[in-house]
Amino acid sequence: MGRTAAALVIGNEILTGKVQEANVAALAVELFGLGIALQRVIVCPDDPAVIARDVGELRGRFDLVFTSGGVGPTHDDVTVPAIAAAFGRPVVRDPVLEARLRSHFGAAITDGHLRMAELPEGGELVVGTSTGWPLLRIENVWVLPGVPDIFKNRLTALRERLGSDTPFHTRAVYTRADEGSIAALLEQIERAHAGVAVGSYPRFGDPEYTVKVTFDGTDLSAVRRAMQACIEALPAEQIVRADPA
Amino acid sequence: MGRTAAALVIGNEILTGKVQEANVAALAVELFGLGIALQRVIVCPDDPAVIARDVGELRGRFDLVFTSGGVGPTHDDVTVPAIAAAFGRPVVRDPVLEARLRSHFGAAITDGHLRMAELPEGGELVVGTSTGWPLLRIENVWVLPGVPDIFKNRLTALRERLGSDTPFHTRAVYTRADEGSIAALLEQIERAHAGVAVGSYPRFGDPEYTVKVTFDGTDLSAVRRAMQACIEALPAEQIVRADPA
Repeated sequence: MGRTAAALVIGNEILTGKVQEANVAALAVELFGLGIALQRVIVCPDDPAVIARDVGELRGRFDLVFTSGGVGPTHDDVTVPAIAAAFGRPVVRDPVLEARLRSHFGAAITDGHLRMAELPEGGELVVGTSTGWPLLRIENVWVLPGVPDIFKNRLTALRERLGSDTPFHTRAVYTRADEGSIAALLEQIERAHAGVAVGSYPRFGDPEYTVKVTFDGTDLSAVRRAMQACIEALPAEQIVRADPA
Repeated sequence: MGRTAAALVIGNEILTGKVQEANVAALAVELFGLGIALQRVIVCPDDPAVIARDVGELRGRFDLVFTSGGVGPTHDDVTVPAIAAAFGRPVVRDPVLEARLRSHFGAAITDGHLRMAELPEGGELVVGTSTGWPLLRIENVWVLPGVPDIFKNRLTALRERLGSDTPFHTRAVYTRADEGSIAALLEQIERAHAGVAVGSYPRFGDPEYTVKVTFDGTDLSAVRRAMQACIEALPAEQIVRADPA
C-alpha cells in the first residue's frame, strides 16, 4: 500500500466562481503517476480558523497534505499563519528569504513583501529546485502557491523529493454499450480481480463511444487481466477501441 | 445574511486525474448570482462510508448541500445509498421512476437501470423541470449528476426552486501595481468598508495587467465606494481599467 494524500485549496475566488480551479487536476495526475493515492480535496475560504482546522485534520488522516493558495503579500493571503496555528507554532521570518526579498525590492520593500519570508517555526525550506524560490514543508504538509503556472512548476520540482511508491496503472476500454446493460458485468469483473478498481464513465452526445470503462491498480498484470476479461465478455460490435495491453 | 452552501463532488475519476472537475465552477457562479454563499467543497472517492460521513457533516453545518456524481447504473455509483445512510433511512424504489425506466428500456431493463429509480425514503422528486428527469432532494441535500452538461442543465432547473437571497455584487479594478506595494492599501480599504471582501489576484506574464483587485458584497453602494477608494488611492498610471461602477 502506497502513501495517501489530501489537498487543501484555499481561495474565495474559487468559491465565488471568479476563477476555475486548475491545480487539483495537475496534482492528481502527478500523484497518480507516483503511486500516491489522492483521497480527499477540500476547497475552503481565506479564513485562518477554517484553514487551521482543515490542515490539522488532514495532516493526521493522510500521509501527505498539499495546500494551494494564500501565500502572497496581501491581507487575503493567510495560509502560512493558519498552518502555523494548526501546528501550534509561531510564525517566524526566515533570514535568507528576507535577504532575497530586500535585495529584489530594495527601498520599495513593504511589510506585504516581507510576509513572503514568513514560515511556521521549524518549517523546512527545500532549496536547490528549478523554481528559484524554495518549497515550504512543515512535517507532512507541503505549501504550494495558487497561481496555476507556478503551482505546476513547483509540482515538477517536488517530484524527485517525494519519490515514487509502486506506481498505479490504468487501462481503458471505449464501448458503445448501454451503461446499465453492462453494470452487472463490470461489478463481476471488479470482484474477480482483487486490487483492480473498475470505473464506468458515460458519455452523452459523443459519436464515437457511449461508455469509457477504466481499470486501475498497482498490479499491472491484474489490470491487464481485468481489461481482457471485459473485452472478451462484451459483444465485439460494442467495443470501439481499447488501450494497448 | 443569506444562506450558506457546500458541495460534495463524488468520483475517483477526479482524484486520479482522469477527468478535470468542471461542475464546481458552474455551481459557484450560480450560487453567487443567487446570493447563496458557497463556503466549502469536498471531493471524495466512490466510497459509501466516506460519502455518508461527509453528507452527514455538511448537511448540519450548511443551509444547502449539493452533491455531484455517483448516480448512474453501475457498481461505482453509490451516492444514493450513501446519502440514505447519512440520514439513517432505507433506500426505496420510486414507482413512477421505475415505470418510466421500464417503459424506456422494455425487456432489456437490468438491475443496474433500476438503481436509477432508487432514492432515500422520504426523498422528494422535484418534477416539472425542463430536464425531463426529476431532481432529487432529501431535506437540505440536493443530488445532482456528475456529467457536466447534465449537471449544468439541472442547475438551471434548480434556480427557480432555490430562489434568491440578497444577491452578491462584485466589481474589479485591473492594475499594473506590484501586489506587495498595494497590500497595505487593500487591507485598509477592506477595514474601512464593512461587508465588502477585497480580493487580490496577481497575474504573471500578462501584458495587460499585474493584479486584479475585486470588491464583493451584498451592499452594492458599499462595493462601489470600496472600488472608488481604490481607484482614488492608486497612482493613475497604475490603473489599467475598472468595471463600470
